[in-house]
Amino acid sequence: MISFESDYMEGAHERVLSRLVETNREPLSGYGTDVYCERAKEKIRQACECPEAEIYFLVGGTQTNQTVIASLLRSYEGVVCAGSGHIQTHEAGAIEYAGHKVLPLSHHEGKLDASELSEYLESFYADANHDHAVFPGMVYVSHPTEYGTLYTKDELTAISAVCRRYELPLYLDGARLGYGLVSRGNDLTLPDLCRLCDAFYIGGTKVGALCGEAVIFPRRAPKQFMTIMKQHGALLAKGRVLGIQFDTLFEDGLYFEISRHAIAMADRLREVFRRKGYSFFIETVTNQIFIVLDNETMRRLSESVGFSFWETVDADHTVVRFATSWATREEDVERLIDLL
Amino acid sequence: MISFESDYMEGAHERVLSRLVETNREPLSGYGTDVYCERAKEKIRQACECPEAEIYFLVGGTQTNQTVIASLLRSYEGVVCAGSGHIQTHEAGAIEYAGHKVLPLSHHEGKLDASELSEYLESFYADANHDHAVFPGMVYVSHPTEYGTLYTKDELTAISAVCRRYELPLYLDGARLGYGLVSRGNDLTLPDLCRLCDAFYIGGTKVGALCGEAVIFPRRAPKQFMTIMKQHGALLAKGRVLGIQFDTLFEDGLYFEISRHAIAMADRLREVFRRKGYSFFIETVTNQIFIVLDNETMRRLSESVGFSFWETVDADHTVVRFATSWATREEDVERLIDLL
Amino acid sequence: MISFESDYMEGAHERVLSRLVETNREPLSGYGTDVYCERAKEKIRQACECPEAEIYFLVGGTQTNQTVIASLLRSYEGVVCAGSGHIQTHEAGAIEYAGHKVLPLSHHEGKLDASELSEYLESFYADANHDHAVFPGMVYVSHPTEYGTLYTKDELTAISAVCRRYELPLYLDGARLGYGLVSRGNDLTLPDLCRLCDAFYIGGTKVGALCGEAVIFPRRAPKQFMTIMKQHGALLAKGRVLGIQFDTLFEDGLYFEISRHAIAMADRLREVFRRKGYSFFIETVTNQIFIVLDNETMRRLSESVGFSFWETVDADHTVVRFATSWATREEDVERLIDLL
Amino acid sequence: MISFESDYMEGAHERVLSRLVETNREPLSGYGTDVYCERAKEKIRQACECPEAEIYFLVGGTQTNQTVIASLLRSYEGVVCAGSGHIQTHEAGAIEYAGHKVLPLSHHEGKLDASELSEYLESFYADANHDHAVFPGMVYVSHPTEYGTLYTKDELTAISAVCRRYELPLYLDGARLGYGLVSRGNDLTLPDLCRLCDAFYIGGTKVGALCGEAVIFPRRAPKQFMTIMKQHGALLAKGRVLGIQFDTLFEDGLYFEISRHAIAMADRLREVFRRKGYSFFIETVTNQIFIVLDNETMRRLSESVGFSFWETVDADHTVVRFATSWATREEDVERLIDLL
Repeated sequence: MISFESDYMEGAHERVLSRLVETNREPLSGYGTDVYCERAKEKIRQACECPEAEIYFLVGGTQTNQTVIASLLRSYEGVVCAGSGHIQTHEAGAIEYAGHKVLPLSHHEGKLDASELSEYLESFYADANHDHAVFPGMVYVSHPTEYGTLYTKDELTAISAVCRRYELPLYLDGARLGYGLVSRGNDLTLPDLCRLCDAFYIGGTKVGALCGEAVIFPRRAPKQFMTIMKQHGALLAKGRVLGIQFDTLFEDGLYFEISRHAIAMADRLREVFRRKGYSFFIETVTNQIFIVLDNETMRRLSESVGFSFWETVDADHTVVRFATSWATREEDVERLIDLL
Repeated sequence: MISFESDYMEGAHERVLSRLVETNREPLSGYGTDVYCERAKEKIRQACECPEAEIYFLVGGTQTNQTVIASLLRSYEGVVCAGSGHIQTHEAGAIEYAGHKVLPLSHHEGKLDASELSEYLESFYADANHDHAVFPGMVYVSHPTEYGTLYTKDELTAISAVCRRYELPLYLDGARLGYGLVSRGNDLTLPDLCRLCDAFYIGGTKVGALCGEAVIFPRRAPKQFMTIMKQHGALLAKGRVLGIQFDTLFEDGLYFEISRHAIAMADRLREVFRRKGYSFFIETVTNQIFIVLDNETMRRLSESVGFSFWETVDADHTVVRFATSWATREEDVERLIDLL
Repeated sequence: MISFESDYMEGAHERVLSRLVETNREPLSGYGTDVYCERAKEKIRQACECPEAEIYFLVGGTQTNQTVIASLLRSYEGVVCAGSGHIQTHEAGAIEYAGHKVLPLSHHEGKLDASELSEYLESFYADANHDHAVFPGMVYVSHPTEYGTLYTKDELTAISAVCRRYELPLYLDGARLGYGLVSRGNDLTLPDLCRLCDAFYIGGTKVGALCGEAVIFPRRAPKQFMTIMKQHGALLAKGRVLGIQFDTLFEDGLYFEISRHAIAMADRLREVFRRKGYSFFIETVTNQIFIVLDNETMRRLSESVGFSFWETVDADHTVVRFATSWATREEDVERLIDLL
Repeated sequence: MISFESDYMEGAHERVLSRLVETNREPLSGYGTDVYCERAKEKIRQACECPEAEIYFLVGGTQTNQTVIASLLRSYEGVVCAGSGHIQTHEAGAIEYAGHKVLPLSHHEGKLDASELSEYLESFYADANHDHAVFPGMVYVSHPTEYGTLYTKDELTAISAVCRRYELPLYLDGARLGYGLVSRGNDLTLPDLCRLCDAFYIGGTKVGALCGEAVIFPRRAPKQFMTIMKQHGALLAKGRVLGIQFDTLFEDGLYFEISRHAIAMADRLREVFRRKGYSFFIETVTNQIFIVLDNETMRRLSESVGFSFWETVDADHTVVRFATSWATREEDVERLIDLL
């Protein structure tokens, strides 16, 4: 059985694990105050070309989204996102639990459109009764999106400009950021994100770490963000576990190197799917590939390959997802290709 | 420099780390549905002699307390605890963030007293205006307590009886449970906890794991506890990281073996402190030792030993804490002894 | 200037006011424990033919919705409603502030459709990942809806049946209930609502009271609902103010009598609008009339008549709302008719 | 039976009621935008000698406390108060429901002490672990307190100075403010409160209104306070009901006139209690009198007088409360005196 279900099925990249083993007995102070956290932050600041960025390490994606979003919103504000946004669909109401409405707009293959955002904001303030409605307080985008698509630099620049016009913080969910940044066609860089966003996170869980997400506030973190983390149960006692992992991932470009591997594997697969005439549900360039299968093929493949059900097309066809990752083995890709 | 500041300064026990390394490339399903989580649960159920227990793995203590407490309380209820309880003092208002008042009673070296609890509950319901007050909805105890003390079986039985009389769930915070269960004088066992409590957690973070706490509901977990975890940002994508660690800790009694090591080290230290005439702030039998130092001695020791400031006694004396753990090395204990 | 902007522009029906004046100096116990609250409840129980109903008086609509919904949902659940539902659009996120997601479905002139509700619930549970989503925990409908439309008994029966099948409480927002119950074509009664719903409220604010909404739990109120009200700031110290008003409104059918007046006024207006060829945005039978005006007519009318802007149709046309109420004077209706 | 149980047992002062009757049929815009709200605000600004004050009308005390406190705190902050503060004891956890911890300090006959407050704040920031604790974010005082006592201008000035030093908003709960301001010995005025506090409310419910509290922000209200009110269910649709009442109460000094009546009645009673040798539980100058009765006297009095149980002293003695109000009749006071 070969496995393409998702990008969080294996442990951590071996260099990450080794560093955990090597440093294991060093006594280190808790709650993210250790030297490895400091080094990891410094490396990320350099990768971001943003020496004044404030950086925090959290454990998982939903936790990060809840904590960051709650820290950026006033009580009467909600967070605008694409209707396909992870916070709207698959986080069990974590944002609402923190007291805030999610304000979904139409999505375009997972993406928010800057002019639609602008129209929404304009009409919100034009409504004479807007004092009785939830105020848009920030904007959430995912990059790559939940559909594996990417914002172009122009698109994100346009969204950022709308946000600035309305003084709304722009927050980017980078659960799979590595895979996005190294994909063919991507023209966004970490320094761009620092310039265009007010907060974003570099996902570790899906890109080589056991767990962990690095939140970047390029200019200024919310006051007492560490206490806010604690209040959300998001402050790890052994902060070292996150610091050591990110220190390793940002040493000698490991984060990007393993991301490139995942994309190379995905590109190879994509090319074969295309050549063999498979139908793509959505065109992606990242590590997620969405294919429409007839159900007979789906059944046949599922005997020897793991992949994810995405959605039903009709009685005879189904959209499924094949995901590669830092851990995908070339031989498994070749085996899958043989089966197609 | 030798280190006795706390019990979360090193990584994980080597057998735990090795298992993470060995299993690293096995593709496993996410969110706690993997085989290692299942095995770990089964081992814990056996150690608890409680085959029907429902078990969940969370990442850290504050997160666990917030999630479990919120899942057990009705909206108009609060959680009763000793005034020294961690949820009252050092969790940044995580319980209140979830909408619930913490209702502190007097503590006795960190412990709640069953008859005081009973009196409080009696007088609560006797108050004609109690409909305007926060209802006591559950009871929280720590074992060991924040002061390193232990409940006897009689004491916890009495508290449990009061809880049952008022139909209040009893929840035990076992961040350092291993150290408590193997201490000289402790007469409580995991099966006792299953009998007396409605929920408790076996702490991993401070007892040999990189991170992780195992929550036990001996009878029945709150409905959809997994979704509640997700909503709190407490559901780890790579649940394997927790499952593998607890599977190892509960294999061949490793959890208790490493706990005994910590207590042996603490007992050795305690004996020397006592012999040399040091003054104990509180008598403990667990891995935390609270000593009153004159400030000159404190300054001298702090040049070569790490320990924690606890509180000021007077202008010339200070309470400090020495903590041992699974990771404490005998040679460090001997070096410390030489310095005393 | 004559006024048709809304149904909450005047004070209270004179009989209600008189009773407040007559009883003013009677010393009465607080927080809804007085004899007038008790009498009002008894009269409502009789009107509902539901002797075991539990009844509470709250002050306003958003407050009532927030308090009732929060009392009926588990923490991980949200409330399903039509996308036009007041809780979704005009309550400033009061439901989310209480920690719960609003789950909007398509609306049909303000109404939820039973089969769409059923499909949504079926597909929710069919989704393999639903443990990561917000669970539908109850259903909210408005009667009359925000568009002034009404559910038929068949429609509400079908919705109720779906709710029972999925064990979801059905809650009906009756801010304008009186106007709905006496409208031509309505076939629902208070006893029907008791049978079909698990909670609903009889609106006072818009139907003859200074303020106040009567919440009916036909079978059983949530435990300690009074404490929940207090926690939401919804328990009025002088509960008498609400009790006396509802006692008067439900004496000799005043509530229905004044509702009929509003509908008679609306019917008269509707007939003239129709006769004079005005275009209806939506067909309603209740006290709200939605008319498409060309902007020139709108400007002309607005010089002597107050009405509400509803929405823009195109550059030259606008939807406006004329609302009648218990307080609408016949002479004002005739003056408006002269202007049409 | 004569009634001294509390100060919210009757309706409203007759001039207030009359104005509600007179204005009843005037069509007015909703949500506090009507002319009477505007006039009432202007009169209050004049009484406060604070032309730039921002003023809002809410319905009740707990609602006001919850809404104002939530609007002034950051998510990780709590509200400091005397342990006897209403928000700590009798508001059903409304503050915690809004996500914030109440941080009680010792009280001195209901009052907070400025130097104890200062010590608490100093030691909070001196604690090396304060990042893990709830931050003090504002200070709450009641005037009169729950024990009927008053802050002197010096005391409140000292508390205000501590608050300014730590940049903490000072909020004063004035549920019974009128009774405090006209009491013998009070040396605080509305302009003083504007100078010393960042927010306070002038209680209407207990001082002549059917319901209603006027919140004053002497300098600047929290952003979008109206939306925050709506989100808390605290924005009355018929804002007129509050505006008209406060417009009347602040016309020709009615608020103070009726407060003086209550205090004259209380002073008369106090003098008799003292003369007849009754034992005072606490010395007060306001409308609440706390007397220690032997239980036989208590039983005898309770046959013809209503008063409140306060607390048990011993097997034979009980503290009870006699409250006067704007509505207390001289003849009832004389009847009570005859019974003493």
